Amino acid sequence: MVRKNKKITAAILIIGNEILSGRTKDQNVSYLASWLNNNLGIKTEEVRIIPDIEKTIIKNISTLRKKYNYVLTTGGIGPTHDDITAESISKALKVKYNYNREAFNILEKYYGKKNFNSGRKKMARMPSGSKLIYNPSSIAPGFIIKNVICLPGIPSIIRSMIDNLKNYLKPGSKTYSLTINMIAVESKIAKELSVIQKKYKKFVDIGSYPFFRLGKVGVAVVTRSVKKKLLQSCHKEIIKMIRKKKIKTFTRI
Amino acid sequence: MVRKNKKITAAILIIGNEILSGRTKDQNVSYLASWLNNNLGIKTEEVRIIPDIEKTIIKNISTLRKKYNYVLTTGGIGPTHDDITAESISKALKVKYNYNREAFNILEKYYGKKNFNSGRKKMARMPSGSKLIYNPSSIAPGFIIKNVICLPGIPSIIRSMIDNLKNYLKPGSKTYSLTINMIAVESKIAKELSVIQKKYKKFVDIGSYPFFRLGKVGVAVVTRSVKKKLLQSCHKEIIKMIRKKKIKTFTRI
Repeated sequence: MVRKNKKITAAILIIGNEILSGRTKDQNVSYLASWLNNNLGIKTEEVRIIPDIEKTIIKNISTLRKKYNYVLTTGGIGPTHDDITAESISKALKVKYNYNREAFNILEKYYGKKNFNSGRKKMARMPSGSKLIYNPSSIAPGFIIKNVICLPGIPSIIRSMIDNLKNYLKPGSKTYSLTINMIAVESKIAKELSVIQKKYKKFVDIGSYPFFRLGKVGVAVVTRSVKKKLLQSCHKEIIKMIRKKKIKTFTRI
Repeated sequence: MVRKNKKITAAILIIGNEILSGRTKDQNVSYLASWLNNNLGIKTEEVRIIPDIEKTIIKNISTLRKKYNYVLTTGGIGPTHDDITAESISKALKVKYNYNREAFNILEKYYGKKNFNSGRKKMARMPSGSKLIYNPSSIAPGFIIKNVICLPGIPSIIRSMIDNLKNYLKPGSKTYSLTINMIAVESKIAKELSVIQKKYKKFVDIGSYPFFRLGKVGVAVVTRSVKKKLLQSCHKEIIKMIRKKKIKTFTRI
């Protein structure tokens, strides 16, 4: 059930030296932002990528969780020394960093008492009061504490567990979007787009994104709004303007 | 010429609703971070992705340029109404937002006087005092003003113009890295890695990154340092530890 025009916002905090160094390409931002909007009507308003440094994590969690309804973190909840996200979140929220009984039991059962070593046990330690986000793929759960949601870094694991978030997060108004692709340079429609944007300014965002494709220059004009009817009428005005200019539009594959 | 152990830092500021909405996957962070380290020894310490909102851009520019040696922005310097990066940077730096004579001449020559419309002219407006970063692919230049470097958003254009940065940015010490890939779960080496990390703590960062490949679980252990010899000795210690445990290592393709 989605409430009408309720704006719910999120920030995504990617924790990991491997992303900052350029070694690993992030694959979570686009997925999480789309998932949050499509499934819960939650709008991602900021993303930060930061290193595995405790005081940096604490500072960013504290800042972002005040600014947005939710903060989703990815990365840093494994068994090794550089996995410091759970402990840092505990410090940011000023709660204890303890074994979560349920997580401990899940992991002990999975690994067997004999193989449940200190690294694996570490994955059961979380901010006190956390609720678990179950992980069907690699078992070690994520968690939610207050408005902070802590997920692992591996894209396929995130995808396997994300549906659990529906149990915890309040939904907002979905942002709808419509796209028009055309073979044209941006400057050909810049002035007219600006006029249409002014008309719809409070309700529809118009974005203009150039691209290259098969040696041709194109533009994707994307309209976004939580108000479906206004979105459609704005979209139609843009199409009308484009037709008037005899610019060719197409469906981008 | 790279000075010994000089730390030069950067932040990357990705400006664009299309990245935040999830519609477009960022392809610049990993490329820019790698390029800066490999070519100039500049370490990317933070990335932020923010919307096309003037006050948000101003605030982030102001914060990041105080915290790091350089801020590189991508996106928002085209001809349309949603391209507000150059004007926002001017406001953040409290300098005028004017036509840059050189940029104006380059663009006017390229488009021809007749076709040099208002949208195209906009691409010649920049913070007063900017130096140009020439763009051989789509002509409209980026710029550098104080410690802020402003680049377009399209990955192929960035790649075509990035070498120009060598004329403007001061180099630092390159961070070297070595990687060991193995078929093992992280928890099997967590304790030992932590001991080695403690030994090298000031000089080498050890990262442990799990991955899935052909149905097997693996770990990449990445060591990073500006000190090449210490890096190699740390790397060797990790290999020795892994061999002792009879874990299979391999070169990842």
